[in-house]
Amino acid sequence: MTEELYEYIQKTSTVWVREQGQDIKVKDWIVPVWEEAREDWDAVLLGVPLSRSSISASAASEFPKAFRKAWELFTTYYFDEQVDFRGYKVGDLGDVKMHTTDILKCHDNIERAMKSVQQQFPASFVASIGGDHSITAPLVRAIQRKNPDKTIGIVQLDTHLDLRDLSQGPTNGTPIRQLVEGNVVKGENVYNIGLHGFYNAPSLIEAAHEHKVNMISLKQLRSKGIAQQIQEVMEQLSKKVDIVYLTVDMDVLDIAYAPGVPASTPGGMRTDELFDILFEMGKYPIVRAMDFVCIDPNRDNPALSTVKATTYAFLTALASRYIHQRKAVQQLSI
Amino acid sequence: MTEELYEYIQKTSTVWVREQGQDIKVKDWIVPVWEEAREDWDAVLLGVPLSRSSISASAASEFPKAFRKAWELFTTYYFDEQVDFRGYKVGDLGDVKMHTTDILKCHDNIERAMKSVQQQFPASFVASIGGDHSITAPLVRAIQRKNPDKTIGIVQLDTHLDLRDLSQGPTNGTPIRQLVEGNVVKGENVYNIGLHGFYNAPSLIEAAHEHKVNMISLKQLRSKGIAQQIQEVMEQLSKKVDIVYLTVDMDVLDIAYAPGVPASTPGGMRTDELFDILFEMGKYPIVRAMDFVCIDPNRDNPALSTVKATTYAFLTALASRYIHQRKAVQQLSI
Amino acid sequence: MTEELYEYIQKTSTVWVREQGQDIKVKDWIVPVWEEAREDWDAVLLGVPLSRSSISASAASEFPKAFRKAWELFTTYYFDEQVDFRGYKVGDLGDVKMHTTDILKCHDNIERAMKSVQQQFPASFVASIGGDHSITAPLVRAIQRKNPDKTIGIVQLDTHLDLRDLSQGPTNGTPIRQLVEGNVVKGENVYNIGLHGFYNAPSLIEAAHEHKVNMISLKQLRSKGIAQQIQEVMEQLSKKVDIVYLTVDMDVLDIAYAPGVPASTPGGMRTDELFDILFEMGKYPIVRAMDFVCIDPNRDNPALSTVKATTYAFLTALASRYIHQRKAVQQLSI
Amino acid sequence: MTEELYEYIQKTSTVWVREQGQDIKVKDWIVPVWEEAREDWDAVLLGVPLSRSSISASAASEFPKAFRKAWELFTTYYFDEQVDFRGYKVGDLGDVKMHTTDILKCHDNIERAMKSVQQQFPASFVASIGGDHSITAPLVRAIQRKNPDKTIGIVQLDTHLDLRDLSQGPTNGTPIRQLVEGNVVKGENVYNIGLHGFYNAPSLIEAAHEHKVNMISLKQLRSKGIAQQIQEVMEQLSKKVDIVYLTVDMDVLDIAYAPGVPASTPGGMRTDELFDILFEMGKYPIVRAMDFVCIDPNRDNPALSTVKATTYAFLTALASRYIHQRKAVQQLSI
Amino acid sequence: MTEELYEYIQKTSTVWVREQGQDIKVKDWIVPVWEEAREDWDAVLLGVPLSRSSISASAASEFPKAFRKAWELFTTYYFDEQVDFRGYKVGDLGDVKMHTTDILKCHDNIERAMKSVQQQFPASFVASIGGDHSITAPLVRAIQRKNPDKTIGIVQLDTHLDLRDLSQGPTNGTPIRQLVEGNVVKGENVYNIGLHGFYNAPSLIEAAHEHKVNMISLKQLRSKGIAQQIQEVMEQLSKKVDIVYLTVDMDVLDIAYAPGVPASTPGGMRTDELFDILFEMGKYPIVRAMDFVCIDPNRDNPALSTVKATTYAFLTALASRYIHQRKAVQQLSI
Amino acid sequence: MTEELYEYIQKTSTVWVREQGQDIKVKDWIVPVWEEAREDWDAVLLGVPLSRSSISASAASEFPKAFRKAWELFTTYYFDEQVDFRGYKVGDLGDVKMHTTDILKCHDNIERAMKSVQQQFPASFVASIGGDHSITAPLVRAIQRKNPDKTIGIVQLDTHLDLRDLSQGPTNGTPIRQLVEGNVVKGENVYNIGLHGFYNAPSLIEAAHEHKVNMISLKQLRSKGIAQQIQEVMEQLSKKVDIVYLTVDMDVLDIAYAPGVPASTPGGMRTDELFDILFEMGKYPIVRAMDFVCIDPNRDNPALSTVKATTYAFLTALASRYIHQRKAVQQLSI
Repeated sequence: MTEELYEYIQKTSTVWVREQGQDIKVKDWIVPVWEEAREDWDAVLLGVPLSRSSISASAASEFPKAFRKAWELFTTYYFDEQVDFRGYKVGDLGDVKMHTTDILKCHDNIERAMKSVQQQFPASFVASIGGDHSITAPLVRAIQRKNPDKTIGIVQLDTHLDLRDLSQGPTNGTPIRQLVEGNVVKGENVYNIGLHGFYNAPSLIEAAHEHKVNMISLKQLRSKGIAQQIQEVMEQLSKKVDIVYLTVDMDVLDIAYAPGVPASTPGGMRTDELFDILFEMGKYPIVRAMDFVCIDPNRDNPALSTVKATTYAFLTALASRYIHQRKAVQQLSI
Repeated sequence: MTEELYEYIQKTSTVWVREQGQDIKVKDWIVPVWEEAREDWDAVLLGVPLSRSSISASAASEFPKAFRKAWELFTTYYFDEQVDFRGYKVGDLGDVKMHTTDILKCHDNIERAMKSVQQQFPASFVASIGGDHSITAPLVRAIQRKNPDKTIGIVQLDTHLDLRDLSQGPTNGTPIRQLVEGNVVKGENVYNIGLHGFYNAPSLIEAAHEHKVNMISLKQLRSKGIAQQIQEVMEQLSKKVDIVYLTVDMDVLDIAYAPGVPASTPGGMRTDELFDILFEMGKYPIVRAMDFVCIDPNRDNPALSTVKATTYAFLTALASRYIHQRKAVQQLSI
Repeated sequence: MTEELYEYIQKTSTVWVREQGQDIKVKDWIVPVWEEAREDWDAVLLGVPLSRSSISASAASEFPKAFRKAWELFTTYYFDEQVDFRGYKVGDLGDVKMHTTDILKCHDNIERAMKSVQQQFPASFVASIGGDHSITAPLVRAIQRKNPDKTIGIVQLDTHLDLRDLSQGPTNGTPIRQLVEGNVVKGENVYNIGLHGFYNAPSLIEAAHEHKVNMISLKQLRSKGIAQQIQEVMEQLSKKVDIVYLTVDMDVLDIAYAPGVPASTPGGMRTDELFDILFEMGKYPIVRAMDFVCIDPNRDNPALSTVKATTYAFLTALASRYIHQRKAVQQLSI
Repeated sequence: MTEELYEYIQKTSTVWVREQGQDIKVKDWIVPVWEEAREDWDAVLLGVPLSRSSISASAASEFPKAFRKAWELFTTYYFDEQVDFRGYKVGDLGDVKMHTTDILKCHDNIERAMKSVQQQFPASFVASIGGDHSITAPLVRAIQRKNPDKTIGIVQLDTHLDLRDLSQGPTNGTPIRQLVEGNVVKGENVYNIGLHGFYNAPSLIEAAHEHKVNMISLKQLRSKGIAQQIQEVMEQLSKKVDIVYLTVDMDVLDIAYAPGVPASTPGGMRTDELFDILFEMGKYPIVRAMDFVCIDPNRDNPALSTVKATTYAFLTALASRYIHQRKAVQQLSI
Repeated sequence: MTEELYEYIQKTSTVWVREQGQDIKVKDWIVPVWEEAREDWDAVLLGVPLSRSSISASAASEFPKAFRKAWELFTTYYFDEQVDFRGYKVGDLGDVKMHTTDILKCHDNIERAMKSVQQQFPASFVASIGGDHSITAPLVRAIQRKNPDKTIGIVQLDTHLDLRDLSQGPTNGTPIRQLVEGNVVKGENVYNIGLHGFYNAPSLIEAAHEHKVNMISLKQLRSKGIAQQIQEVMEQLSKKVDIVYLTVDMDVLDIAYAPGVPASTPGGMRTDELFDILFEMGKYPIVRAMDFVCIDPNRDNPALSTVKATTYAFLTALASRYIHQRKAVQQLSI
Repeated sequence: MTEELYEYIQKTSTVWVREQGQDIKVKDWIVPVWEEAREDWDAVLLGVPLSRSSISASAASEFPKAFRKAWELFTTYYFDEQVDFRGYKVGDLGDVKMHTTDILKCHDNIERAMKSVQQQFPASFVASIGGDHSITAPLVRAIQRKNPDKTIGIVQLDTHLDLRDLSQGPTNGTPIRQLVEGNVVKGENVYNIGLHGFYNAPSLIEAAHEHKVNMISLKQLRSKGIAQQIQEVMEQLSKKVDIVYLTVDMDVLDIAYAPGVPASTPGGMRTDELFDILFEMGKYPIVRAMDFVCIDPNRDNPALSTVKATTYAFLTALASRYIHQRKAVQQLSI
């Protein structure tokens, strides 16, 4: 084909062309791992498109696709801290394979995939993109299996405790219960931040008490201040565990800010508060993995508030890690 | 019919089956008064599905139905105060009967219904669910008629003064004017909280001044602090009146939080502020009745932000009463 | 409680009060089977709220609830034929119990429930309300198990063949394949009506040919005329089978008429055509059961076009049965 | 103000500037009657913004405004008949004044307004724009009062009979009952076209039979053909009455075509059928007035299908009158 | 990277992975021309993302992206004709480069791009995807420039004549005027099919008459029948021209079927009629290029009716060409 | 026409009738300048309906119309300051004339229009209503041309720097770059307030540094406090410039508050913060003009949050000017 053809046409097709230059978009910055021979990714990204495990009907399985599509709206420059974090290398692993009707097999695939990821990229921070909250159990389990001699703690941003019993199998209401009862994580090493309102039944509160799960209400967080509260939680955890897993159920946000999360509620967190928390969490190298769950892009408003908020949150977390700990990250190995 | 049939089928039909157990939903907690022989309801609930009296077209008459439907999304455990308030007994009275074209008769029915309610349940707190704001006039009038020797005050959360003249009859713009000019409530015993912006015409301001209605702007509220402001208002009222009626026009909320209220505006209250106000109000046994008005469920967003916010507000008010004054309530009789 | 209370209030609460009189709504006509001791129901209704088996994310599991809610919009008088069919007795059985994560158990529950239904109400026509199309396989299987010596045929209104292979387990793309390969129904006894466009992959066409499934495109249907086409199909089936099962995947409708069906497409059937087909089908007593599947009420437009169209279709089918065969039905027993 | 200012600015403000030229929009063609001294209007337009009389909540009162706003999307050239009908003179009278809470007074205002219109413009065709269907009763009553020695017939395009009893006063479900029982129009002189489905309760059918209202179902219309059916109806009416009133309840349309009519249903008329009927009706000078009712612009889809369809229908009716009878109209006086 | 990693993960990232097998989706069938060395494409596809030339605001520039995204919903098997047309080779050229503020340069780029395309792929059918209707002028001009000794005719499916004068430059209202006045195409060789209603001002009708543009109304089309009408048009054109260009303004569709076209109207064509026309047009090898214009994906309904209808139409056109003329195509050279 | 006709009818038509009385709406307060002979307007309003210059597709050109329509929802009484500002005289100039395809000509028209406005009304504050942000460059240029010996500064509320290079001509991404590189405004005299997140590429930051544009992030603003920050900015500007131009890109708002701004983002400003800023800015007579840009009313939510927020912001700015400086304004002449 002659060169001339492309004088007035650009190659678009169904493929995102990666661009380079002084200015790049997030879509150009995050690279499929199979396109670049590199093992020292600062972070790797894993799509986990499962939501048929959700108690109420959800299309959160569509979120990894919507999330990647939103990348063209964001740059690699973080204005609040005046820093270009493109030097932080992020590889996209693709999505965990799912079975259409065997939900347990899906969870098993997630666990196996996470184990492979850690095998292949032991020094990389792992960011998983759900899917619903049921994915957190196999993800954390994989970390524990891979690091049998390490103790794991969890920081959970959530309006719900996710401590339901297992009578209906592993759902988006059970991950913390599974991990605690499965001896993967001790209840006392779980810090649930953002609880409020009328969304946790007494039996769950009782389960939290029984397992000594730490519950920090949104009111307490606001009263103490985000920086102070996160510092206290992380100082406590640092004394007790070797690895911290951060799980963000986006239903922690107020429904005005996250209309696309089926379980979001009035009285929840504002996005600026969430971003501040994630910025603070980025200071701690002990945090080795995180996930964002329960965003149903089919229910988002036409402005895509929720998809954009999640992308903003994800970038804040990574930018903060870049600022605070890039070198440290590279020396650590979980 | 054999038992076997229901081994794999559950009775759902068009009827909500009431459930019991450690965990119950609000739908299982609020009981139709005709299903349970009891006179000592802590609170009774009255649906008031009237909105053809609204100045601009509104389907707020559909709200009692939407409100009850939302009950399945809420539990009886209030996390912020770590209390299960199911012990607070709430009876659902059903809805006031309405006439399709005779609006005055509708208002008369509301007044007569409220009178019957007080006759039957003199010790119960009465929560009315509108409907538009025109319902407040007959509701308060009924209380005054039933308690001719008591003085009534009003705490009104509203972006508008609702002091329009009666030339177009009783509408959602006139209830306070009706009560003040009808000598049911003195203007000086009305406290309107949440006013702001460009939504009250000069003639209404003048009417407020003339009748000495107390106007507390949203800015003043924020400047003074919610707890302090409510305390001051209630202390003043306690010296002047015997009974306080709380009326919540949901248009007091910012349009970002209450898109389903036809008259909601930018620059309004946040939901967390509203919830805090209602929690504070729950401390005062002198408050004997309340209403929530002007929510049009047909205009709510698909996430149902406004319907959920109203339910959250309603539960906060009741939970606070449970916490602060349950015993007191039972000893009082209006 | 005094009578007086209900002079101005009506009992509404969260319960539909059944009304009687010259005019009743469909909600008053269809009675929960546990409320009326009767075994000779002309038809029984079974909710089947399963859609986590759907290939793409779907909230069709919410449809039985939305369907019952729509009953208040319809009367029992069918204007087109000038007949009040309230004499046709329809009992609502409730919904099949589902497991949250074990999809095979859900399908097993459906089959067992359907077997119980036939045991209990052997003479009643069974109308099942999905849920996604995966429910058709266990429903038909139950009929076959209960009538092992009878031959079953299927009339399928659908844009898709639903003949996918079982590698991903039983989904909404596999029911016909399951039934044919499971020797429950012979391919030659399946008549798929309404196929068109670009929605069936070559492997499915090949499977249809291999199993001798009868394919009647929408163009053929229109060319021959609905009455004539249905007559031909039913005459052929009457010679080959003892029982006909009618399954209506609402994605057979054009997307302009059924925006709430995730897989509806341009170029599909109009609602008036669907109603005519169902009216014709009502002439044949050999049709012993039917289902409506794949309506996701969360995706319907605000006017609820799709929910209303399904209710209209359901009523047309029953009204036609009432007109054509009520007596015959009562004498038959499958 | 210097001329120069408007070299680069155009006067827009909140006022539609009427334009003239070879091409004009409908907004430029329909002239407020107070702007042009003329008594021989071919037609006059009367807005009737009342819908608090609607049984279910409706904002049809907003329709006259939405209707006028749509005029900028239409020209005065009717392509189907290749005719520019701008020579047909249409005057806009404005809207009937309404009372906010006295619905009977609203109906009285409508009747008085219509009487004035006939007094002032006896030779003009009157097009009324609702509002809900309750407006038809006072409109027709005014014609009868003004023409006490004339007999009036009605052609009603509707999915419903509108023959409800008056126990709830005059609503959008009662106009035909009011007119028949009030001896304004004989039942045998009412032709209801477009009935179908499950939307008329038995008591209404009975009332229709009792009053000998002519019922023509949508199926009959389609079977006979529009031109033929309308011709038959009009020939019958021409023998019996002096004046025909045409009332178009837009719920006669299928819900796919009229999502903005609260009561529109599946199985209804297509817009092209409605336009054909209105074109046929335009042939009969005996038709002296018409109305379009029950369009709620707040419920229309974002594409404004329903508002545009009503405008198209309105223009078709007028264009047809222009083509068939302009001269005749001017000689007639009702 | 070890193989093992991809045992449980699939490569998804932001790139559509092309799949092969018995069943492929349209996304796997249409190949970027730069990925496959081939010059004998049966058809090539050109995205033309320009809509700032639209008279009213439009995001039709976003359509090429939305169109390609819809490819995953369609297979290469055309059920109506029982044919798999994957043997028809279609290459995606990408999108014409646009300037953000120089609209004339955009049109020049389109013309130059089209010239390059014809130079490079002289035997391929060219399908252009708009963008708004202004793109048709430069596209046809390029064909004429490349084939100076050939006569070009146009079949236009449109509710509008697009014969506006050029006083506001080349817009979506002017393409036919530009081509006729620019002597690229004679008016008598333009056949506009689908006109109706109140959407063409008298000056445009006059321009059509002056230039002898052939106007075939939707009513005429329906009266004559699609097959017959298309045959007549094409027989006439075949005698007069060497090349036929087919331009489909999707506003020809009824607003119920195409809510996402800003200018779609009531009273328009149904999708099944459009598909039939395109199928008929596929019989004529003289048709050498086509375009689809004026679809604004931001205005489409959530079900994506309009995007899907355009894809269906596009595939019908190509499938018909495959069926009727594949060999012929390869021998022809424009 | 007799008076009697208007006893029951009111003149509505398509024209807003201006009303007078104790209470007026904003629609009655803002008067077309051609309707009232006056040269001492306190402020004049200029519509600038251009958005085909927007980088991404936008219908911000429709905003002036939507803005004026919203005026009927607001009164002239500002509750927060307890003042009726109707004495502040505002004249509506209409809209700048635009060319459909020549964007440079549009910008030229804007500049020429603004020059005429200043010529005609030298003492009036000018409020321009976009349109997209590209309009700011010609508006400020006109002020500079008219006041060649004055120095101009800019306060910009924006999430973006708008310092893109001019390779794609003047767009909504370039106005500040154009003004700075065109020596109309010095970079050091530009104060951009509200920056945050991931929306400014490194090249823009570099350009800001190079031109010494002052960047104040949203976090800095919140940390310092609005009153204090604005005071500091205005004190600095007062020392450096003669005239301050205030430009408000509504994308500075959080997406929860401004869903109708195509570029609004999570993490942005709340409306109450914006209103406070505008109130503070009203204290400085040196501010001589302002604009509001980038609101696309077609993308606003059904509650019209964004249109209402802009109107509220506009009124706050004018009310504050009335309160703080009315007399001063009249003595000044730019």
